[in-house]
Amino acid sequence: MPVITSVAVEDVRFPTSLTSDGSDAMNKDGDYSAAYVIVRTDAMDSLGAPLAGYGLTFTIGRGNDIVAAAALQQARHLVGKDVAQIAADMGGLYRFLTSDSQFRWLGPEKGVVHLSLSAVMNAAWDLVARFEGKPLWRLLADKSPEELVDIADLRYLSDALTREEAISILRPMEASRADRVAVLERRGYPVYTTSAGWLGYSDEKLRHLCQEAVDTGYGHVKLKVGANLEEDVRRVKIAREVIGPDRHLMIDANQVWDVDEAIEWVQALAEFKPLWIEEPTSPDDILGHAKIRKAVAPIGVATGEHCHNRVMFKQFLQAEAIDFLQLDTGRLASINEILAVLLLAKKFGIPVCPHAGGVGLCEMVQHISVFDYVAVSGDLSGRVTEFVDHLHENFTAPCVVSEQVPGEGVGYVLPSQPGYSTQMHNASIAEFRFPDGTYWAQANPCSVESARDESGVDA
Amino acid sequence: MPVITSVAVEDVRFPTSLTSDGSDAMNKDGDYSAAYVIVRTDAMDSLGAPLAGYGLTFTIGRGNDIVAAAALQQARHLVGKDVAQIAADMGGLYRFLTSDSQFRWLGPEKGVVHLSLSAVMNAAWDLVARFEGKPLWRLLADKSPEELVDIADLRYLSDALTREEAISILRPMEASRADRVAVLERRGYPVYTTSAGWLGYSDEKLRHLCQEAVDTGYGHVKLKVGANLEEDVRRVKIAREVIGPDRHLMIDANQVWDVDEAIEWVQALAEFKPLWIEEPTSPDDILGHAKIRKAVAPIGVATGEHCHNRVMFKQFLQAEAIDFLQLDTGRLASINEILAVLLLAKKFGIPVCPHAGGVGLCEMVQHISVFDYVAVSGDLSGRVTEFVDHLHENFTAPCVVSEQVPGEGVGYVLPSQPGYSTQMHNASIAEFRFPDGTYWAQANPCSVESARDESGVDA
Repeated sequence: MPVITSVAVEDVRFPTSLTSDGSDAMNKDGDYSAAYVIVRTDAMDSLGAPLAGYGLTFTIGRGNDIVAAAALQQARHLVGKDVAQIAADMGGLYRFLTSDSQFRWLGPEKGVVHLSLSAVMNAAWDLVARFEGKPLWRLLADKSPEELVDIADLRYLSDALTREEAISILRPMEASRADRVAVLERRGYPVYTTSAGWLGYSDEKLRHLCQEAVDTGYGHVKLKVGANLEEDVRRVKIAREVIGPDRHLMIDANQVWDVDEAIEWVQALAEFKPLWIEEPTSPDDILGHAKIRKAVAPIGVATGEHCHNRVMFKQFLQAEAIDFLQLDTGRLASINEILAVLLLAKKFGIPVCPHAGGVGLCEMVQHISVFDYVAVSGDLSGRVTEFVDHLHENFTAPCVVSEQVPGEGVGYVLPSQPGYSTQMHNASIAEFRFPDGTYWAQANPCSVESARDESGVDA
Repeated sequence: MPVITSVAVEDVRFPTSLTSDGSDAMNKDGDYSAAYVIVRTDAMDSLGAPLAGYGLTFTIGRGNDIVAAAALQQARHLVGKDVAQIAADMGGLYRFLTSDSQFRWLGPEKGVVHLSLSAVMNAAWDLVARFEGKPLWRLLADKSPEELVDIADLRYLSDALTREEAISILRPMEASRADRVAVLERRGYPVYTTSAGWLGYSDEKLRHLCQEAVDTGYGHVKLKVGANLEEDVRRVKIAREVIGPDRHLMIDANQVWDVDEAIEWVQALAEFKPLWIEEPTSPDDILGHAKIRKAVAPIGVATGEHCHNRVMFKQFLQAEAIDFLQLDTGRLASINEILAVLLLAKKFGIPVCPHAGGVGLCEMVQHISVFDYVAVSGDLSGRVTEFVDHLHENFTAPCVVSEQVPGEGVGYVLPSQPGYSTQMHNASIAEFRFPDGTYWAQANPCSVESARDESGVDA
């Protein structure tokens, strides 16, 4: 029986700040990064390669080392464990890793220790799916309602969702799972693109990228807003002109506004009929989102990429604060917590449109969205999952999006390889490991790091 | 003019798990710890000692090194700064340290990077108060309403509290500040004790400690509950018997219950008339606390030691979810954020009863409560600040509690030495620095650390 023999964590950073990829009103200079966990075993997989699990969480640069250090402390508890036993009780593994009360104090269930737990558990899920020889979405879709509910972290949720309710949500979908797999095999899971609308791009580049999105078959385009209202009006107008009245346009403020400011700003862009305003204010402000939602309807409110755990999502749903739930696979503590959130969303009738982009998030969310449709929501209406075409070349089984059926829109092609699609190329790690990878050693990280010190003199 | 020349961060851990000090239903084996920041300058203070600032945040053991690592990354931005300039614009320093969007991603404003920011800013506040030669409460109480509001972090709060409202809260209290200082100089700031009621203590020890609290003059005693209902009934009954009907009894569940479970459990203890139930469920569950509060009235609901930022406190107040606001000086990002929360609480008419205990929290909260009464709330009714008699001997100017006026109850004696009372003895650091202090080196930290690995085999 395979046993986990060692763990390792890598701090991998890509210099995306150099190109304004990923720039928005809150995050002007992110270097997309991964705290990347490797869980090694003493066995070989079905393809004759060493059986291992690879998982990550996403950050935007400085502090990625802090997350990596926390992940290593959590991951070392995996060493010596039997892979088959873990595979049979992923709920137990999750509870074990979250039962360290000393570590829990540092959150609880939020911030660095929750990001790092996500990376570790993502690696464990990747390992288990590889061990079973299935892509992760398939591994989950092959489980019974009871098995899935045993995996889900339902703690603190019972006032909104009991174990029995969770099973009663999953049960009616069970017999028809195969039908929905067939639907997705034909057309993929619907996606939208954010690649067009980063704040750092020129009007010309924005126009060109919007047109490219239309030509590629996208039905949705998302723009970053919130730095300057006059510019936002101009940019959103351009995007609406290019995509026409029938495609969807979303706007994303990345938390820059206070509540009433958000309402005023969004109302000033209402004429361009955005489908949603994303992250209008602090990601912690449940009641603020509820107020904004009432004021800007019929424009929807979307948030979740910084929503730190299932207790917060429970309240966003209870308070009727959101129209679209954008969970993040590197911020929630892996499948165990995501499953609870999918079930909550289904109960409250809110579509889950996961956040992606960054590093590896697209690779993960495709599994989540496919599983959600197949086993939980059973519904594609109003659902669209983010896709950003950055950094996929660093993964051994990168996600693929395409318009498989002309006129039906672009979708994530169903992942077919065993695992969670989270393995990076060794060459990518060797190049972008911080600070000693070949890229950073050559770029002189000392000068990169000191840039902020200098900018701080005037701040 | 003094300039900051260097910073250092120490990982200091006390082996409190050996004595069950601090044990509760969630946290059974905490080793009370501090991520301790030292900010050194090139000058001497008014007493002829090197001018420096000392600040900390509190954790309960494992992961304290993670917080320390984050604090070091934030603190190094202080090097080279002019102390007088910092002292004149602490709002600017706070905004500068919180403006690193890459680091912000790791929260935002929560978890490890917010704990570490608290430690760094606490050290900066200690430094500034020493530079001005005043205890921190006095430094703040000497500032104008406009100066205080410039310091307060009001971001994301304007739907509940505008800058103008904040000034209009502080203005009417200004002329009478000296009167309230005189009140506190006479009787101290009211405290309650938690030292009696840790879960790990025997009934005999509980009874003895409750009697000791009564004999010392305490009007409030707090017990930990939540592990076992039958035992809780027995223990709470003992405490009520010992303290009699007129003193206050509080109970603290440390987040162990789901919402409806909390309601049932508290109702089963209602006959013993607790003043409040503290942390009945997840600290993130604003709406859950509101539901519990409605159900268990007239028993009050208290929370805050894990409330991670001002946006959460805003919502606890907006949702009418709490009767007592228990902010934590190591979890909120120092005076800048605490000031915003004091102002919010005043606006909503909720008393602030800060969380303390741990390491150094008592030393800090005395400054907060004194300032709150003198300049913000102007009211002592319904207010009582936590005091736990652990680990004070490690501080150079430990807090002092006593019954200065017989029959008026125990209070924190007003701190008189310059600073935030957060400096530890060098000898304490040398003994308890982890893992190389003399205590830990002798205790063999390898075996301490591996204890959890072994316990995990059966988990």
